[in-house]
Amino acid sequence: MEKILCGVDLGGTKLSAGLVRPDGSILGKSVVYDHVSLDEEGIVNYITMIIRQLISVNGFTEQDLEGIGVGFPGHVRYRDGCTITTSNLKGFKNFPLREKLGGNFNVPVRLDNDANAQAFCELKFGAGRGYDDLIFLTVSSGIGAGIILNRKIYRGMTGTAGEFGHTIVDPRSEFVCTCGNRGCLMGVACGLTLPARFRKKIEDGMQTTLPLPGDSDFSRVDGRFISQGIAEGDPVSMAIAGECADYIGIGIYNIFQVFNPPLVILGGGLMNLGDFYFNRILEKFRELARDMIYDPIAIVRSEAGDDAGLIGAAALLLE
Amino acid sequence: MEKILCGVDLGGTKLSAGLVRPDGSILGKSVVYDHVSLDEEGIVNYITMIIRQLISVNGFTEQDLEGIGVGFPGHVRYRDGCTITTSNLKGFKNFPLREKLGGNFNVPVRLDNDANAQAFCELKFGAGRGYDDLIFLTVSSGIGAGIILNRKIYRGMTGTAGEFGHTIVDPRSEFVCTCGNRGCLMGVACGLTLPARFRKKIEDGMQTTLPLPGDSDFSRVDGRFISQGIAEGDPVSMAIAGECADYIGIGIYNIFQVFNPPLVILGGGLMNLGDFYFNRILEKFRELARDMIYDPIAIVRSEAGDDAGLIGAAALLLE
Repeated sequence: MEKILCGVDLGGTKLSAGLVRPDGSILGKSVVYDHVSLDEEGIVNYITMIIRQLISVNGFTEQDLEGIGVGFPGHVRYRDGCTITTSNLKGFKNFPLREKLGGNFNVPVRLDNDANAQAFCELKFGAGRGYDDLIFLTVSSGIGAGIILNRKIYRGMTGTAGEFGHTIVDPRSEFVCTCGNRGCLMGVACGLTLPARFRKKIEDGMQTTLPLPGDSDFSRVDGRFISQGIAEGDPVSMAIAGECADYIGIGIYNIFQVFNPPLVILGGGLMNLGDFYFNRILEKFRELARDMIYDPIAIVRSEAGDDAGLIGAAALLLE
Repeated sequence: MEKILCGVDLGGTKLSAGLVRPDGSILGKSVVYDHVSLDEEGIVNYITMIIRQLISVNGFTEQDLEGIGVGFPGHVRYRDGCTITTSNLKGFKNFPLREKLGGNFNVPVRLDNDANAQAFCELKFGAGRGYDDLIFLTVSSGIGAGIILNRKIYRGMTGTAGEFGHTIVDPRSEFVCTCGNRGCLMGVACGLTLPARFRKKIEDGMQTTLPLPGDSDFSRVDGRFISQGIAEGDPVSMAIAGECADYIGIGIYNIFQVFNPPLVILGGGLMNLGDFYFNRILEKFRELARDMIYDPIAIVRSEAGDDAGLIGAAALLLE
C-alpha cells in the first residue's frame, strides 16, 4: 500500500494539518485557530495531537505515514530543522521544531519556510507542473517567495533564500517595512500597507465611493475592502491597487533579470484583487522588460488554492 | 602532456586572447584594440589569426588545445552559442559566434557572457576558491554579474540570468540607464553616471578641489578622476563615490535576501575607488541587513586582476 504524507501549515492565524496522498489530494484535514495563544512546546503538543487524531479518524496507523512536512511562517535554519524567527507567532526564536515534533513520531519530519513549501506545491501539483525552474511569489499581508531550480527548492546558505519581499525597490518611499527598512517590496506592496495608503489618499482629498471607516480608523482596509472598491469602480481603491501592482511588476521584472526564469507564479490573498490588479502587474512588467525578453516567460496565477500551504508542506517529503 | 586552454576576452575596447594552463596561469597572450572597427566576420577572422599565432609562437599545435572559451560583452543565447545583443560592439545581433569560430578550429568552443566567465574565474582561481556558491558583481562603465550555484554558472532559460545591473532599485531616480529604464542599479551606480553626477553637484553649487573640466565638458569624469578626488579629499568626488557605493550596498543587500549566499565578490574598474568606496558599500549593506544575517556572508574584492576576463573565458572549458 502506498504511504501517505502528512502536511502541517503552521500559520500566524490558522493552523491546518492534513493527510495527503502522493498525488497531492487530501485524505482528511483539521483546521484550528486557537494555537496562537500557545507557546512553542504547546504548539508542538497541539500539532502532535491533531496528527494522531487525523491518523486514527481516517483509519490509518503511524506506520502508514511516509513522514511529516511542516511549513513555517518565518525564517528557518533548514539543515538543523530549527526556526530562527517569525513575526507571525509568539516565540520560536531558534526553536528546534523539527526535532521536537520528530520526537513524538517515528517518521521523518521536514521543516521549511511556508512560501518554499507553497512553491514546491505549485511545481508538483499546481501551475508549475512540467517546469524545472520557477519563482513563486505570494502577496498577502506580507510577501513571501520560493525559488525552484532544477525541480528543487533553492534555499541558500542558511535556508532563508528567496526573500524578494525584503529586496529594496524604492528607497525614497514613504513606507517602512516591519523589517525596519524603507522601500522594500513588502514594505511598499503588501496588504499591510493598504490602510496607510487609503488614509493618505483621503487626506490628499481623493473621494472614495466606499463607506469611509469611522473615526478615521483605516485598519479595516484590507484586500477584501479594496476588492469591493475595484468592483464598484472606486477611484481610491483603483489607485491603490494600481500602485501596489506596479511595485509587484517591478519585483517580477527584477526576478526576470536575475533568474531569467521560464515561469513566475503569483499567489496569496491580494491576488483576489482580480484581473484589474493582475493585468496592471503584467503591464508594468512588460513596460520594463520590453525588448529584453528573448524567450517566453509565463507569469500566471497560482492554481493550488486554499490548501496550498498544507499540501506544499506534505510535498516537502517528495523533494 | 596536459592540454592547454585558450581564452578570448572580447571587449568593447580591448580584445585579449591567451593560452592558459588548467591551473589558471597564462602561457602567453595577445592584446589588441583595433578590432572595434571590424564587423562580426572580421572579428572572427581576427580572433582566429591571433589564436593561431599564439599557438605557434608558444611552440604548440592545435592538437595541444583542450578548447577555446570566449567571453562576450553582452547577452548570449548559451545553448545555441549565439550572441543576442551588445551595446559594446557593432553588430552581433543573433550572431552564431561559437559556430563561426568553431569552424576554424578542430576543438570545442564555449561562448558565454563575460561576467559569467569572470565569476567562474573567481571560483576556480580567485576569491571564490573553496566555495560552492557565490555571486560576482563587476562595477565598471556598466554593471555585470555572474551567479555560481553548486560550482556551476547559473544561466537561466536563455543564458541571460544574473543581470543585477538591470534590477530596479530606485524608480524615482533622475538617472535613466542605457537600457531605457529609470533607476536600475546600472543606471544609478555605474561609471557611466559619473559625468552627470559631477555636473549636477557643480550646478548645485558644490565646490570641487579638482581642476574643473573646461567648457563644462564633464565627459572626462571617470573612475580615475573621482579616485584622484578621493585621494585629495575633494568633497564632490567623495559625495559621488558615496552615493554610488550606497546603491551597490543596496544591490548586495538585495542579492543577500534573494540568494542567501556565503560570498559576494566585487570586481570591475570602480573598485579602484579604494577603501573609502568599498567600506561605504559594506556600511550600507550592514545598515540594511542588520540582525537578518544568521550566517557569515563574506563580501570581498576580486583577486583575479586584469586578466580575469581572459582566464575566465578559458576556465569555461573546465566547468
